[in-house]
Amino acid sequence: MKQVTLNDTNAIAIGAGILGTGGGGSTYLNRLRLDNEIRRQGRSVDVVQADDVPDDALVCAVGGMGAPTVSSEKLQAGNEIATAVRALEDHLRREIYAIVIGEIGGGNALGPMVAALQLGLPVVDGDGMGRAFPELDMDTFMIYGVEPSPFVLADSHGNVSIFTRIRSAKHAEEFARRLTIEMGGSAALVMPVMTGAELKATVIRDTVSLAKRIGETVLDCRARSIEPAATVAALCNGRVLFSGKIIDVERRTVQGFARGKLIISAFDDFEQQLRIDFQNENLIARRDGQALCTVPDLITLVSLDDGEAIGTESLRYGLRVAVLAMPAPKELKTPEALAVVGPRAFGYEVAFQPLAGDLL
Amino acid sequence: MKQVTLNDTNAIAIGAGILGTGGGGSTYLNRLRLDNEIRRQGRSVDVVQADDVPDDALVCAVGGMGAPTVSSEKLQAGNEIATAVRALEDHLRREIYAIVIGEIGGGNALGPMVAALQLGLPVVDGDGMGRAFPELDMDTFMIYGVEPSPFVLADSHGNVSIFTRIRSAKHAEEFARRLTIEMGGSAALVMPVMTGAELKATVIRDTVSLAKRIGETVLDCRARSIEPAATVAALCNGRVLFSGKIIDVERRTVQGFARGKLIISAFDDFEQQLRIDFQNENLIARRDGQALCTVPDLITLVSLDDGEAIGTESLRYGLRVAVLAMPAPKELKTPEALAVVGPRAFGYEVAFQPLAGDLL
Repeated sequence: MKQVTLNDTNAIAIGAGILGTGGGGSTYLNRLRLDNEIRRQGRSVDVVQADDVPDDALVCAVGGMGAPTVSSEKLQAGNEIATAVRALEDHLRREIYAIVIGEIGGGNALGPMVAALQLGLPVVDGDGMGRAFPELDMDTFMIYGVEPSPFVLADSHGNVSIFTRIRSAKHAEEFARRLTIEMGGSAALVMPVMTGAELKATVIRDTVSLAKRIGETVLDCRARSIEPAATVAALCNGRVLFSGKIIDVERRTVQGFARGKLIISAFDDFEQQLRIDFQNENLIARRDGQALCTVPDLITLVSLDDGEAIGTESLRYGLRVAVLAMPAPKELKTPEALAVVGPRAFGYEVAFQPLAGDLL
Repeated sequence: MKQVTLNDTNAIAIGAGILGTGGGGSTYLNRLRLDNEIRRQGRSVDVVQADDVPDDALVCAVGGMGAPTVSSEKLQAGNEIATAVRALEDHLRREIYAIVIGEIGGGNALGPMVAALQLGLPVVDGDGMGRAFPELDMDTFMIYGVEPSPFVLADSHGNVSIFTRIRSAKHAEEFARRLTIEMGGSAALVMPVMTGAELKATVIRDTVSLAKRIGETVLDCRARSIEPAATVAALCNGRVLFSGKIIDVERRTVQGFARGKLIISAFDDFEQQLRIDFQNENLIARRDGQALCTVPDLITLVSLDDGEAIGTESLRYGLRVAVLAMPAPKELKTPEALAVVGPRAFGYEVAFQPLAGDLL
């Protein structure tokens, strides 16, 4: 994959939505913004492979921070990420070589491409999550040793903060979350900054290509009037865990997160129910109290109508959905990674029972 | 005044306490820290006059941010301010010429002197408040047009954040307050950064000298067994508003502030009562619902025993106190200043009725 053109943005948005496991923010708004930016600039987004980034070049992961419920209601100014990257370059007196997508899931796959166009930089085909996660310390860059500072937070009013020294990724998460709340619930985040060598050692490769492939599969199924859920699940080495109707949603936007749970009931037997807990992203799917799939494996709700992912901000009674369960990329299943993104890290007293296979 | 020596620290601490109007943090801890630092370095704190700072030199105001209730319980690492100033120098690639005391009231008069010693820099004889105020946008530097950014916040764990672009001093207050809470309720603040020319146009001059003179007066009264309250009030062009016993204190540490009220009853007539509201600092003194003295004029409780100021963190039932009312420095009584530090800015629907005269 060498470029993202106007022909690709819809597929990438659909695929990123499915990889978003309910979070990562609205793909709809960010896709509109990306299309606008491509048209305005009259050029496509350049994509580089991680292995083509020079070892001593400087790259930075970027994305939007905040609850998806906020991101779909509070519009961005549109240049927050670019502003934050420029502030970082000014602070370091060094140029950034390429933009890295912090999380490929949801709108956060697309916002970085808008910034890349504004900055005249390429994006790397890969990301730090292979999905979406609620907290910023939950990426392979920092799990595998990249320093969290300096990092930058910028809001839609042009306020910029550079955290120049931070003791741990957990501190970074806490400070950035607080400040994001004060910034109105959403902010642009540049984090972490790393060398090309660090990128190559920690990135999950080819996830932009994967998102595009997933989206193309959905579009292809639609064109052929096939229900996309099973086909997409197979493409991602996963399966359809459940199908049914959402009969209950409990959701609050607290402490900068969209937290809650939902219950899906089978069409043919109301007693057959699947319960999913989420914190921005879907974390655990349970049936009769038994965990069927847990984070970091991917749990995504897609609409039975068109195969589009349903973000936690869009959940509502009556939606007809399929629940996809897809294995996480292998980088998220090491002991180091599970300590940060496994079910226990989210407070669930269950061991991680991985689905067979890997996402990529 | 050219230096602060070990012979001066007690007097300055007492005087700063009285100028603190209940806030500015514990002078006790910061005086111990200052004495230690002077002994350790084997030299005194150099003091420069604002008018001797070159117009194009760079200076920065510094202090501790947070509720006084926290500052007296959560010890500092001791180098937070110096760390923050060095981070600012690194960011700007420029050297700071002198340290400016952000607020002369309370422990915040002394912490900057510790940092000045650690950094090998002089402190300016003056400050931005002439007293203490609860919010960081309430200083003459920013009231009279100095930009709030860049500013730096640092905590006792070595975490440092530089806010490189901030839309308004009010935004700065909100962001810094949130982050201070997340940092455990207290943090070092470097703000604002300004040129020598800006300093000269906005600083309240000679307030370190004033604090020392007030403290010396208290010590002198003590040595001569005179109750210091009336003498100190006269020195500051003020008066003793009330004397009596604290009979009620209501205090909560909320949103990073110590907020509450206290009631003092006269010794000879219990029905004669003075009520004072505070937000870190004492804001308004009322008798029978009538405002007798309001912010920005200074309201300070001093112990009838030794003339030491009583911070809002140390208020308790039974203390025998005199309430001093002292006119604010003239820089706080212009329309621009009153819009930020007048009674209405704190939510009191009363006009500012200034005491006669000026503090300096």
